[in-house]
Amino acid sequence: MRIAIDAMGGDNAPDEIIEGALESIKLLDKGDTLILLGPAEVIESKLGAKNISKFADVIKIVNAPEIIGMDESPVDALRKKRNSSISIMTKLAADGQADAVISAGNTGACVAACQMRMRNIEGVHRPGIAVVFPTFEGPVTMCDVGANISCKPINFYQYAVMASMYSENLLGIKNPRVGIMSIGEEEAKGNEIVKKARELIRSDPKINFIGNIEGRDMFKGKCDVAICDGFVGNVVLKLTEGLVDGLFKVIKHEIKQQSFLLALRFKSVMMKMYQKYDYHEYGGALLLGVNGTSVICHGSSKARTIKNAIMASRKFYNMGINEKIKEYLATTTVKGADE
Amino acid sequence: MRIAIDAMGGDNAPDEIIEGALESIKLLDKGDTLILLGPAEVIESKLGAKNISKFADVIKIVNAPEIIGMDESPVDALRKKRNSSISIMTKLAADGQADAVISAGNTGACVAACQMRMRNIEGVHRPGIAVVFPTFEGPVTMCDVGANISCKPINFYQYAVMASMYSENLLGIKNPRVGIMSIGEEEAKGNEIVKKARELIRSDPKINFIGNIEGRDMFKGKCDVAICDGFVGNVVLKLTEGLVDGLFKVIKHEIKQQSFLLALRFKSVMMKMYQKYDYHEYGGALLLGVNGTSVICHGSSKARTIKNAIMASRKFYNMGINEKIKEYLATTTVKGADE
Repeated sequence: MRIAIDAMGGDNAPDEIIEGALESIKLLDKGDTLILLGPAEVIESKLGAKNISKFADVIKIVNAPEIIGMDESPVDALRKKRNSSISIMTKLAADGQADAVISAGNTGACVAACQMRMRNIEGVHRPGIAVVFPTFEGPVTMCDVGANISCKPINFYQYAVMASMYSENLLGIKNPRVGIMSIGEEEAKGNEIVKKARELIRSDPKINFIGNIEGRDMFKGKCDVAICDGFVGNVVLKLTEGLVDGLFKVIKHEIKQQSFLLALRFKSVMMKMYQKYDYHEYGGALLLGVNGTSVICHGSSKARTIKNAIMASRKFYNMGINEKIKEYLATTTVKGADE
Repeated sequence: MRIAIDAMGGDNAPDEIIEGALESIKLLDKGDTLILLGPAEVIESKLGAKNISKFADVIKIVNAPEIIGMDESPVDALRKKRNSSISIMTKLAADGQADAVISAGNTGACVAACQMRMRNIEGVHRPGIAVVFPTFEGPVTMCDVGANISCKPINFYQYAVMASMYSENLLGIKNPRVGIMSIGEEEAKGNEIVKKARELIRSDPKINFIGNIEGRDMFKGKCDVAICDGFVGNVVLKLTEGLVDGLFKVIKHEIKQQSFLLALRFKSVMMKMYQKYDYHEYGGALLLGVNGTSVICHGSSKARTIKNAIMASRKFYNMGINEKIKEYLATTTVKGADE
């Protein structure tokens, strides 16, 4: 498998990205290749310090002299910087020279580049990013968490289709229960687009649709798949991160006040918990709906995150759901009237 | 002070509502009155079992034979059920016969009734519900969490104004830092309405505006006030509830596996934590922007929640920010072009 990695993407690029790639090598299969994209001289000098020759058969460098910043407008940046790591990386995938792409860079630019270069799977209107939330009641797949901030009903429907396949194929959940994120369990609640989306999803009997879910239901074992627009999903994702961090801080503080010894004993429990909710452990999220395998990483990814994202890209690639999505959408009678 | 309470609102009405009202009596000032609204015979029979005569000077019953269900469409329900507890309760406030209203019922109906009967404060386009999130770094006031699910830029601006006043007057935070919930810290990010709202808020130098915040920033001490539309805010509020619950469940499980004794010792820490994040402790949220004091409670409010909401209504009433909001909006040069 050939995995292309945007060496210049994210707050800790290129050092942590390159370090993560190197750490993953021991976990790869024979014949696997890692393609690092960025200014060749930068990557070479970083690798030089680490004695690149011993990785020469695994690591390939593809020169991409331009860098898209985290705060640039995605569309403008892609138009102006055709030689950016994100642009060339997605072109490699489009040309069949890479089996998966990974970036911790500007999410908007990465999603747009995947759409422009690799194209959507036939029948897919807009791709969506799927993230798995580990909960006490089991994993919940949420889609979209940031690719599409102004969703139409047909987008919600297709997220329900694609995320169900993801849940079934990657997590082994048979006939996953799909809920749509809204502001009340009652049918009357939710904004107009969510209401229309609900009707559209309900019109497909193959989806195990349970209707509205509320924020709290994510952690109550009520659904296996949660559908929402990218704005809401992104807020949810980052809130969860921040809240878990914040809560552990409070617990630590309170325990220390009670007894230092108790704090020490609790530390191991906390570390175990922390891992379960730590995005670094998950590496990255799959961009559902594009032709190929695209893994979107957190902007503050570290070497460990990238290593895990590389391993995740292998799982996503081997899951092979793109063909199934294409078939499903070719035969469904549910069509969006508005796109 | 005369506090009107919707005895029929919420999943646990009327028992828990009435119980909460009774529990609050010992905390009231001399001369305070609680007005319970609902079918008189129902309330009387519930009170009868508790020997109402000893509360006769504090509790007043106002007959409201109709009940608005949690799942009814707010506008339809208010049109059809003019004798509902929510309708009559807000009419009491509008007529100067109640100083505060409290309901754990259908939030949409309650917000709509407050707007229709009590009217908005002069200059306010749409009211918003303000909730305080207790965090390790201090309290963060979020507005709106469910009154207005399709916000215009002027609504965001006015939430920034009103929630700043709330933060300053109720929580004592001088010159509170206001952030707008978006999907990235960068200026380029966010949907079109959020971008326009940002410009509007920024054009008022009296607001201490820090621009975009992300979900995680809520718990990092980055802002004192977080502005968002009611859809996003409601998801955030309920997600927080669910995640805190879920996380405590996980911690309990992990600790028990390590040592039963450790679990016992940790229990007191958890109870302390739990209280801090438990909405029952806060009672209810203030509906900012209506003429009067309206407290919106959680649908699953228990007696303790209602008791605390009654105490909160006294605080809100005494804070007296409505006049300040009116003055502020009368003199600001920031006007919405779109309403």
